[in-house]
Amino acid sequence: MTNDHRAPTGPGPAGPAPAVLAQNQYGKAETRVVRITRDGATHHLKDLNVSVALSGEMTEVHHHGRNTNVLPTDTVKNTVYAFAKEHGIASAEGFGLLLARHFVTTQEPIHRARVRIEEYAWDRVEAPTPAPHPAGTPEPRHSFVRRGQETRVTQITYDGARWEVVSGLTGLVVLNSTHSEFWGYTKDPYTTLPEAYDRILATEVSGRWRFHWSDDADPEPAWDTSYTRTRAHALQAFAGTYSLSLQQTLYAMGARIIEHRPEIAEVRLSLPNKHHFLVDLEPFGLDNDNEVYRVADRPYGLIEATVVRDGVEPRIPVDLSHP
Amino acid sequence: MTNDHRAPTGPGPAGPAPAVLAQNQYGKAETRVVRITRDGATHHLKDLNVSVALSGEMTEVHHHGRNTNVLPTDTVKNTVYAFAKEHGIASAEGFGLLLARHFVTTQEPIHRARVRIEEYAWDRVEAPTPAPHPAGTPEPRHSFVRRGQETRVTQITYDGARWEVVSGLTGLVVLNSTHSEFWGYTKDPYTTLPEAYDRILATEVSGRWRFHWSDDADPEPAWDTSYTRTRAHALQAFAGTYSLSLQQTLYAMGARIIEHRPEIAEVRLSLPNKHHFLVDLEPFGLDNDNEVYRVADRPYGLIEATVVRDGVEPRIPVDLSHP
Amino acid sequence: MTNDHRAPTGPGPAGPAPAVLAQNQYGKAETRVVRITRDGATHHLKDLNVSVALSGEMTEVHHHGRNTNVLPTDTVKNTVYAFAKEHGIASAEGFGLLLARHFVTTQEPIHRARVRIEEYAWDRVEAPTPAPHPAGTPEPRHSFVRRGQETRVTQITYDGARWEVVSGLTGLVVLNSTHSEFWGYTKDPYTTLPEAYDRILATEVSGRWRFHWSDDADPEPAWDTSYTRTRAHALQAFAGTYSLSLQQTLYAMGARIIEHRPEIAEVRLSLPNKHHFLVDLEPFGLDNDNEVYRVADRPYGLIEATVVRDGVEPRIPVDLSHP
Amino acid sequence: MTNDHRAPTGPGPAGPAPAVLAQNQYGKAETRVVRITRDGATHHLKDLNVSVALSGEMTEVHHHGRNTNVLPTDTVKNTVYAFAKEHGIASAEGFGLLLARHFVTTQEPIHRARVRIEEYAWDRVEAPTPAPHPAGTPEPRHSFVRRGQETRVTQITYDGARWEVVSGLTGLVVLNSTHSEFWGYTKDPYTTLPEAYDRILATEVSGRWRFHWSDDADPEPAWDTSYTRTRAHALQAFAGTYSLSLQQTLYAMGARIIEHRPEIAEVRLSLPNKHHFLVDLEPFGLDNDNEVYRVADRPYGLIEATVVRDGVEPRIPVDLSHP
Repeated sequence: MTNDHRAPTGPGPAGPAPAVLAQNQYGKAETRVVRITRDGATHHLKDLNVSVALSGEMTEVHHHGRNTNVLPTDTVKNTVYAFAKEHGIASAEGFGLLLARHFVTTQEPIHRARVRIEEYAWDRVEAPTPAPHPAGTPEPRHSFVRRGQETRVTQITYDGARWEVVSGLTGLVVLNSTHSEFWGYTKDPYTTLPEAYDRILATEVSGRWRFHWSDDADPEPAWDTSYTRTRAHALQAFAGTYSLSLQQTLYAMGARIIEHRPEIAEVRLSLPNKHHFLVDLEPFGLDNDNEVYRVADRPYGLIEATVVRDGVEPRIPVDLSHP
Repeated sequence: MTNDHRAPTGPGPAGPAPAVLAQNQYGKAETRVVRITRDGATHHLKDLNVSVALSGEMTEVHHHGRNTNVLPTDTVKNTVYAFAKEHGIASAEGFGLLLARHFVTTQEPIHRARVRIEEYAWDRVEAPTPAPHPAGTPEPRHSFVRRGQETRVTQITYDGARWEVVSGLTGLVVLNSTHSEFWGYTKDPYTTLPEAYDRILATEVSGRWRFHWSDDADPEPAWDTSYTRTRAHALQAFAGTYSLSLQQTLYAMGARIIEHRPEIAEVRLSLPNKHHFLVDLEPFGLDNDNEVYRVADRPYGLIEATVVRDGVEPRIPVDLSHP
Repeated sequence: MTNDHRAPTGPGPAGPAPAVLAQNQYGKAETRVVRITRDGATHHLKDLNVSVALSGEMTEVHHHGRNTNVLPTDTVKNTVYAFAKEHGIASAEGFGLLLARHFVTTQEPIHRARVRIEEYAWDRVEAPTPAPHPAGTPEPRHSFVRRGQETRVTQITYDGARWEVVSGLTGLVVLNSTHSEFWGYTKDPYTTLPEAYDRILATEVSGRWRFHWSDDADPEPAWDTSYTRTRAHALQAFAGTYSLSLQQTLYAMGARIIEHRPEIAEVRLSLPNKHHFLVDLEPFGLDNDNEVYRVADRPYGLIEATVVRDGVEPRIPVDLSHP
Repeated sequence: MTNDHRAPTGPGPAGPAPAVLAQNQYGKAETRVVRITRDGATHHLKDLNVSVALSGEMTEVHHHGRNTNVLPTDTVKNTVYAFAKEHGIASAEGFGLLLARHFVTTQEPIHRARVRIEEYAWDRVEAPTPAPHPAGTPEPRHSFVRRGQETRVTQITYDGARWEVVSGLTGLVVLNSTHSEFWGYTKDPYTTLPEAYDRILATEVSGRWRFHWSDDADPEPAWDTSYTRTRAHALQAFAGTYSLSLQQTLYAMGARIIEHRPEIAEVRLSLPNKHHFLVDLEPFGLDNDNEVYRVADRPYGLIEATVVRDGVEPRIPVDLSHP
């Protein structure tokens, strides 16, 4: 095959300001892997969605389609599966560390790897009547039910020297049916909102928290314990704050995490205000003493902030994204 | 305003076979209502998505846009909110019965009402540190967290004389990590699937079950108890069946409900086979003893069947739909 | 392997009313196939999502997991791909006919096949600068852009003797910015809606139309022409009707199809009223002469009806579902 | 009401490293506004989804729930509607500029506004039979059909002195059925992918491009022309590039924009590789000469890069997000 019809579309003739390649990354997104571990008749299950983004010496492939430095994204996918077998999945974070280190240390042109993982939680189906099994053998425990829409997430970034681990969650929907007010705000000519002294406060929490840990020489945090406790602190701060604004609740959630979890340097929270509006029942001769609410889809207030440990420079991006 | 430019678009000049109106229905879909009930400092919450479809003498509005018989869908929405206040929401089914009866009995041209309800479950946030409250007052219990993607549904149909109640659920994702085989099937020239003697079986259950109850003179079933028990039977049959095909598991689920819940006449289940394929790790020198699976999105096997109590005529439509 | 732990979960001991299997079907859903046909440098593309449901002698597999009569759903998928190669895809309907006939005529236990197809439309990217190609060769035409969210659908059902073909579309979003009114409706104690003499009418059309054709002995309709013309009639009726209610518009759409397309026996339309509410700008000292609207998500009016050719018995289910 | 039970959850007692508020923003997201402009019987339509995020002196509200500096998000929504009336919507960018300037210049505590807009495109329904209208009056042109899933987006940021405008699109799905190869890549022990010399290349383009313009003293770009031309360049580069990797195609798209559109400083593209895998038909005795493809959902390659004009510092975030 002659190549005459495949002229590279690289930088054009030197004009006053030609195009230049800047940040770039590539990889395989959303590799869905389930890992079963059998402990006799008791099975354990890990269910992950893994997205890998690699960066490095990639000028040639962008300018000329020369793939010499390109490890195929199909290989990235294969590696996820093979590592699930070879190393198991102790935690989402631990698995991401293994993958990130692998790509950076085995591929010379790759200088940086970012691994994002979503983890879906499953509960056991606890059977009153156990599954059929031969007499004298242990009771089977291999049935699971998906826990819900809440998803644990983590992002591991490695440049060959330093680690950055940002974990978090999405889809945690919470609601307080009282202990929320909103008044004393600015009124401008476009303000019509009546003040509220007892309202529903509901949100779908997206949170990310960055760990101090960044050096192989230091001991790793206990990833699973950290997640469980951090999530609980967020929930407790939401439930336990008498709220005069969603900003106040957000800050309480972030500050509580920083104050109770020394392994965490920084928290970013994105809280859409899932508005529950009191329905006006007066036209029907009925009062509505905080009983009947309509739930709105859009628009919604969106409150976002980062809370850091004093002295820490924030690094989590302003807009949370996944996967 | 003259009316000359709004000629009705009714049936055309009598041709050999003009158009004729057949089944029709209208109403308000997806009215999202939250009902809070305060029992001192302990709050209770019901979160519903209500869709109402009304049928009756509606020829005029279709042929000529004459709305005389049309209760606006906006009024339907208002009624949902007002009834939530006036009657509370004891159960999704009970609330649907009230609404369906109301429309059929108060609107002379309405002969039939169908009310579909989705119910979203919430759990309490059990606070180790209770929310702040004045000393000597009861501990507040007004914080909730959404349970998950599983949704309870019901459909109430009333024609002024007989009731039909079909309840069920969607989005219940379950998985057995063993005790599933698939072999001995038909092979034709397009068959390449290897037989499986130990595989993952996973599905997202959509189920509907119709109650025998249809007459006001008979006592209503205990809706909430029935739901909880029926769901548990479905789950137990899924977990407890050593499965040689998803059809067998489906039938076991349906039959168990029929056999244990005398109030139920008919069950329809729709079970997408959420394929978990064993990854071939041989190219990497690894075996895969039912450890690492890739999760496929599409295509998927789809197994659907109705199980009835002997002598009962099935009435649940072949294709489940909602809302 | 002994079988003692896999007792069939068939019908239980004869009680007063045991469980009985009723309607059932199984198959492969959402097989996504793209078929390219090369006509020199000009390529043609068909992009389908195919779902097959088979019914027949399936009692054994439900009761005992005996798969003798079960053609695997994996084979169904393979057949879709192989047929795309062997027969090409002239039209969604034509492809569905081939598949349905195949399963019913080659599999003795299969008595009925239902094939649902979604077709995604693509337009050519018409390049002002053509793609690079050797001098003297025809200009390449192999670049496409997806047309939109509108999807053509069809459902073919075959029982070995008679055909039923129901085609249609989903996701066709249309809007009239005037020539829509709504007044003269019933007022009950829950009615607060003000009458409207000039409003936006918008909907997302879901339509299904059933063909008269059912017998191999009769010539098949021209499927593609029929689709194009039927869609155009629906659009023209929507645009050309001065509407006093969405029911009137719906009927005009259905009736126009029946009156102009003799091959069609029956039309079902499902029209969610995508409410555009005039914003009250009075608090800001502004009038709003049908200029600024807020678009609501939920709840929405939902208007559904079947229009048949006189003498035809309606068969399209009340609730449209796909795939 | 006494306030004793609403102790602020501000920074805790001075420990070694208390929590500190960092970047924060709030506003109303996804205000859906439709603006109709009547030019006699010809109507024009703009359909936007507007999200506003405001930043400034917000420490008090986070620490203590004191809302003095908080303009309610409800007011933000009202402002969107009022501005649609007062100023019309000439372009998404122009409308965003008006809103951003308003919040920063009228609210003293607000120092920065970011306005994100999605614009949905509509085409006219060109009626062969025009809508009914009195003789002698102009033909009505008020019927529209939504163009598709592609969405135009823009983001305006203003800090009282400088502007940043980043426009783009999402959901543009394109496919080349040939002129795509992939070979010569790195092989490691996890590589199994066969090289491809003729494959389908398909992607769903997400793009963002930042304008040089940042100063009120300079003339604004022609926003709509810029959008149309930039989109066309992206499409042409996709269609016209003989591709040896998706990276090469991506760079060609970005570079072509930079080279042809002097108003643009920087382009970020995110291109998921929508894999179309050639189906293996050999088991059925069929060859597959690039004719039949299966379309995969997940996982997918994801290729992302920024292309800048030489000398320009990139500012578009690595992960594109919306709204």
